[in-house]
This record gives sequence, structure tokens and C-alpha cells, in this order.
Amino acid sequence: LDVDLHGPSIPRMIGLPGQKCFGMENQIMPLSISENLKVMSIAFLIPDDTQAVIWRGPMKYAVIQQLLADTEWGELDYLVIDAPPGTGDEPLSVAQLVGSGAGAVVVTTPQKVAIEDVRRCITFCQQLHLSVWGIIENMAWLACPHCQETIRLFGETSGGSQLAKETGLDLLGSLPIDPQIADGADAGLAIADCPVSAPVHQAMEQI
Amino acid sequence: LDVDLHGPSIPRMIGLPGQKCFGMENQIMPLSISENLKVMSIAFLIPDDTQAVIWRGPMKYAVIQQLLADTEWGELDYLVIDAPPGTGDEPLSVAQLVGSGAGAVVVTTPQKVAIEDVRRCITFCQQLHLSVWGIIENMAWLACPHCQETIRLFGETSGGSQLAKETGLDLLGSLPIDPQIADGADAGLAIADCPVSAPVHQAMEQI
Repeated sequence: LDVDLHGPSIPRMIGLPGQKCFGMENQIMPLSISENLKVMSIAFLIPDDTQAVIWRGPMKYAVIQQLLADTEWGELDYLVIDAPPGTGDEPLSVAQLVGSGAGAVVVTTPQKVAIEDVRRCITFCQQLHLSVWGIIENMAWLACPHCQETIRLFGETSGGSQLAKETGLDLLGSLPIDPQIADGADAGLAIADCPVSAPVHQAMEQI
Repeated sequence: LDVDLHGPSIPRMIGLPGQKCFGMENQIMPLSISENLKVMSIAFLIPDDTQAVIWRGPMKYAVIQQLLADTEWGELDYLVIDAPPGTGDEPLSVAQLVGSGAGAVVVTTPQKVAIEDVRRCITFCQQLHLSVWGIIENMAWLACPHCQETIRLFGETSGGSQLAKETGLDLLGSLPIDPQIADGADAGLAIADCPVSAPVHQAMEQI
């Protein structure tokens, strides 16, 4: 479930840009991208998804509530909710609407400025009694496609592990930037179908 | 003016993390970082800026209105407002509160998924009668610090110029990722004070 109401990117990243889903009175049918993966996004429901969604908080809460309550998922093993960064109305609505078995995985980039935002997200989860299952560090490094050397894009700080240490949370893994993943996402290729390098594959498997 | 209420990073990036500003009844004094640059951020006003700000839309509007109306800027040549990404309450409040002389500069990264979000931002500005002055492409490329070759981080797409062409807007410039700028921002060094490479300097000068 993609709850990024202002920037719903999941449809393109899974290869379904421009698709609409079928809805009845109190039922919305999610789209299936494989036998065991269904997806729902606000982009599937609005007529023209190049248009900006101009909604304030209470409206966003109502929309997310509807997406959660009215989508006909069928029987689920897991419901993964992708929220936009920060502690705005989307994650707040989710935290207030989901049950007590839910947990959050927080994603950061290595810079100090990002770490501070993510520290606020962790406080936010704690205040809303949402357990935090761990931290993922994204864009941590890059292998130069020309000389294969490792480049730390955001300087030498390893913010993710520092944050994990400080908060007592687990660092679930560090993901590099891989131009092939970005290209794959733009083309709607699932990460499993991207020709990623061994270290990237390994980092993902670990997570 | 930093209107990122959930992730106010400007204080750290200008070297004033943890600072508080002085306020009287209906007056807030901005902090000065040089003779001709004053800064205001929500982080200067809340007691503990590691805490998450949990506010819904109407409250955010009220806070931004107060930051705009009550800050004692003195005489200004320009007021630059840094908003978080997307078309949420922060840019919406700003668009509704600022006068008709205002304009927006939209910042994107090169990926298709980012371009779609930014296209929505442009529609958003048009709907709110805010003129768009141009597009800046950020994280467009990187010079490998080992072999100096150019790396296009997000694949070969040049989203910024494509978007400019499509919307008839100017591409004001393309900025690379420079680990030294990220380090500088973490350390509170202004970009002008970072030891950036000639191409980065040139790209910034152009903008």
C-alpha cells in the first residue's frame, strides 16, 4: 500500500504507470503484479495522476482510512505500507489507523542532516506506540562503474550505524546506489529482475 | 525561511544546530549568519528539536503564517523560502500566504519517478497561480574521486532537461553530487566556503 498521496511513485516502479483500478461502492480492488503481490496506490484511483493532489491533513486521513478499510486484499501474509519521508499526515494517519501488531522500518541516508530527520521519525514512532523494527541505510555508497572503486557519496560519515548505536536499534543493512536499480525502477522492473551487482544483491538479501 | 516543519535541516546546514531565537509577544527575531543573511526555522522555536513535530495541516498553516507574519526581518531584498518536497501543507500554505510577486524554483533529481513528482509540483503551482521561474536538476552526476570519470547516478535519463522541454520552463542548471558539499552541510559550512571542484562551482554560479 502506497500512502504517498502527493508523490505516488510505486505504480511506475512496478510497471503499472497510468493504470486504474476497479472499485465498487465500498470496495476497491487492488492490482496484482504477480501471484503473491497486490498493490494499491492513490494513483490508481485518481483520473489524471499527473495532477497534484491538493489536500490538507484531515482529508488525507480520510483517504488513507479508506485505502486501508476498503481495499479488498483477500488474505494477506503481510501488508507493507510505503510512506513518504518525515512525520507528516501520511505516516501519522497510518500510525493511528493500524493495529498494535504493526512495526516501522525507518530508512535513512548517511548524512548527518538526514540522520536528524530520522531520529525525529523514531521519536514519532515511540510517541505513537509503534515499535521500530530497525534502520536501513540507503544511498550509502556507490561502486564506480569505470574503476570499480567504492565511493561514499555523502562524505565519510556512516550515519546509519551511528544512529543504530545511539538508539539501540538494529541496522538491518546498508544499500548502495546502483544506477541499474534506478533505471529498473524507471522502467518498472522489480528489483529482483534488475541485473544488480553481487554486493547489492547481498545487501538486499541480508535485509 | 525554512518551512520544513518535520525536517528543519537548515539550522545544521548553516552551522547553527541547537540554537534558539529570541521572541517577544508578536515578534520573532531571526538569527543572523552574516551581515546580509538572516534565517528563521521552526527548529529555532521549539525547545527540543530532536522531537518530532506532530501537527496536522491546519496547525501547519497557522505556524507558517506566524513565521511569515511575525518574523522581524527588517528590510529585505529577497525572501527565500525552502519548502519540503511535494505538494503538501507546507508549500500549499506558503502559496496561499505569499503575495503575487512570488515565484517558485522547482528542484528535481534526474529519475523518471522524481520527474513525475515534480511535474505534479508544477501543476500545483499553476493551480495556485504561483509563477514557476525554472527547474534545477540536483544529483545529476558525480565525478569519481578515484578516476575522475563522470558517473550518471540515476542511469542515463536526463530528466531535468526533458521536463524543461516538455513544460516550456528553463532548466536553470544541473548540480552534481559532491561529497564535499554533503560533508560541508553536515559541518555547517556554507557552500561558498566548501572546497568544491571547478565544475560544481561553475554550475552553481550559472544558477
